[in-house]
Amino acid sequence: MTAQQAIKVGIIGTGAIGGFYGVMLAKAGYEVHYLLRSEYPAVKQNGLMIQSDVYGEIHQAQANAWNDASQMPKCDWLLVGAKTTSNPSLVPLIEAAAADNAKVVLMQNGFGVEDELRPLLSDKLHLLGGLCFICVHRGAPGIIYHQAYGGVNLGYHSGPATAEQALAITEEGASLFRNAGLDSKAMANIEQARWQKLVWNIPYNGLSVLLDATTGEMMNNPDARALIADLMQETIDAATACGHQLPDNFVQTMLKATDKMPDYHPSMYHDFTHQRPLELKGIYAAPLAAAKEAGCSMPKVEMLLQSLAFKVNQPIAEL
Amino acid sequence: MTAQQAIKVGIIGTGAIGGFYGVMLAKAGYEVHYLLRSEYPAVKQNGLMIQSDVYGEIHQAQANAWNDASQMPKCDWLLVGAKTTSNPSLVPLIEAAAADNAKVVLMQNGFGVEDELRPLLSDKLHLLGGLCFICVHRGAPGIIYHQAYGGVNLGYHSGPATAEQALAITEEGASLFRNAGLDSKAMANIEQARWQKLVWNIPYNGLSVLLDATTGEMMNNPDARALIADLMQETIDAATACGHQLPDNFVQTMLKATDKMPDYHPSMYHDFTHQRPLELKGIYAAPLAAAKEAGCSMPKVEMLLQSLAFKVNQPIAEL
Repeated sequence: MTAQQAIKVGIIGTGAIGGFYGVMLAKAGYEVHYLLRSEYPAVKQNGLMIQSDVYGEIHQAQANAWNDASQMPKCDWLLVGAKTTSNPSLVPLIEAAAADNAKVVLMQNGFGVEDELRPLLSDKLHLLGGLCFICVHRGAPGIIYHQAYGGVNLGYHSGPATAEQALAITEEGASLFRNAGLDSKAMANIEQARWQKLVWNIPYNGLSVLLDATTGEMMNNPDARALIADLMQETIDAATACGHQLPDNFVQTMLKATDKMPDYHPSMYHDFTHQRPLELKGIYAAPLAAAKEAGCSMPKVEMLLQSLAFKVNQPIAEL
Repeated sequence: MTAQQAIKVGIIGTGAIGGFYGVMLAKAGYEVHYLLRSEYPAVKQNGLMIQSDVYGEIHQAQANAWNDASQMPKCDWLLVGAKTTSNPSLVPLIEAAAADNAKVVLMQNGFGVEDELRPLLSDKLHLLGGLCFICVHRGAPGIIYHQAYGGVNLGYHSGPATAEQALAITEEGASLFRNAGLDSKAMANIEQARWQKLVWNIPYNGLSVLLDATTGEMMNNPDARALIADLMQETIDAATACGHQLPDNFVQTMLKATDKMPDYHPSMYHDFTHQRPLELKGIYAAPLAAAKEAGCSMPKVEMLLQSLAFKVNQPIAEL
């Protein structure tokens, strides 16, 4: 039995993110269990398939598929890839699938997602945040399209660990992903890291819906590009007001990184076209509230949230 | 010959606005001449028809239709109802149709439209602004749908008149419309009046395109309504910075007035659906530039312009 096989990884919410990382970890030798709902029969029968522009086809024909969390083997690591919009309803599933002292990693976009889940989780569970830098979306049941990247940065949020143990746990988590051939770093400050990721998510996710456009279409238009830069700057200023100094020239860094990306529809665009709820709270309402608390306004970010809330009829007051 | 018949009114740009006021003035006894392009054959043959929710059907079967400005009788009053996007190309037509000392009224939305046209017009012409409070849009050639309202406020912009003469001319213009049964006032300050009208035009015109919505759909949604109020407040603050104090509680006044209006698609929505150029300069870029000059930022208004510029591919730098 290898070291990998001794570790059981549970995937809660086997969408694009959960499916991608599950298959990559399984390929690296970890024992991976997938909790599924509507895609259970397809994955049980055909396994999971990544169609990647980077790696080609990766097919896990025999996937450990489950449709009942209470029947899953107890897992040491639980990767939560479901949308933040369903987090509260995931708590009983997480608890059912967790080994004692399991590590729960929220591999989700947005801000405040760990804060929201923490009070609902039992004290013995470690809670971490995972920031995924990846271009990926779901296809037919069991099919995942991967366009680029795949890095995951982890940070410890809360749980029974001392500071020293927390760092060791975070490093252990990062080593899982590195063993699967993916970039992964342990980060000291998950909140700062989430702000940093919002600098990308805030403009591209919402504008892709509001303007019905890909990243490339927006980046190639001078006015949309200027608007993206404005939204990034508001986010950086809000992070600063909340005590998180982001890297210098970060707007330019993010714009240049996006120029090099393949033309892309962010996840919110796919949620919109499939009439799934948009992650308006984690990506917009929570950062706006934190910024306001720190005395900082984000007018263009607020307008983006107001417009999206109207467009999909998810009132801000009910997020 | 009545006093009305002694006055010749030319309509330059017989769209919804020009057509509506032309027919109302003709019905009141004025000699009205219509300059037309694509709709010339239809109007020559069938005249103009207003289908009004207020007045019922008003048919001017015999309309003086022209497709060549140089053949029109010289007119004492010229009402310019064309889109601001075509203003520079209208100058030769205005000059050709104008009697000596004619009064030219720009019955258009936006800001700075008179300033832009003035240097192109001969010195002997009087230039006025006309602010129309009306819900109207074009149907088939020669058909105008009128939903509500119809008032016109006039202000003298520039020309050979002394201050006293300017006021008399403005009063004379207002009396034309009053003789046609419409509300009309002479205003001392056309620039202030245009800012006041922008408080309505800025939110509703652009958002109707960006959110694909009617006024009623937006007003009945709490988040769109809040966004509308924010855009109004930015406009009022910009007007103040530019030296124009608008009425107290003007946001609430405008919201309440709009609640009482019929459900409505503003003119920019019709321009968008018919793939005509949007009036982005007069309604957005010019007020934004004036506000910036006065040291005032309008972030949500700017975002609306940036979004629209992308959506219809009219780069801001080329407006």
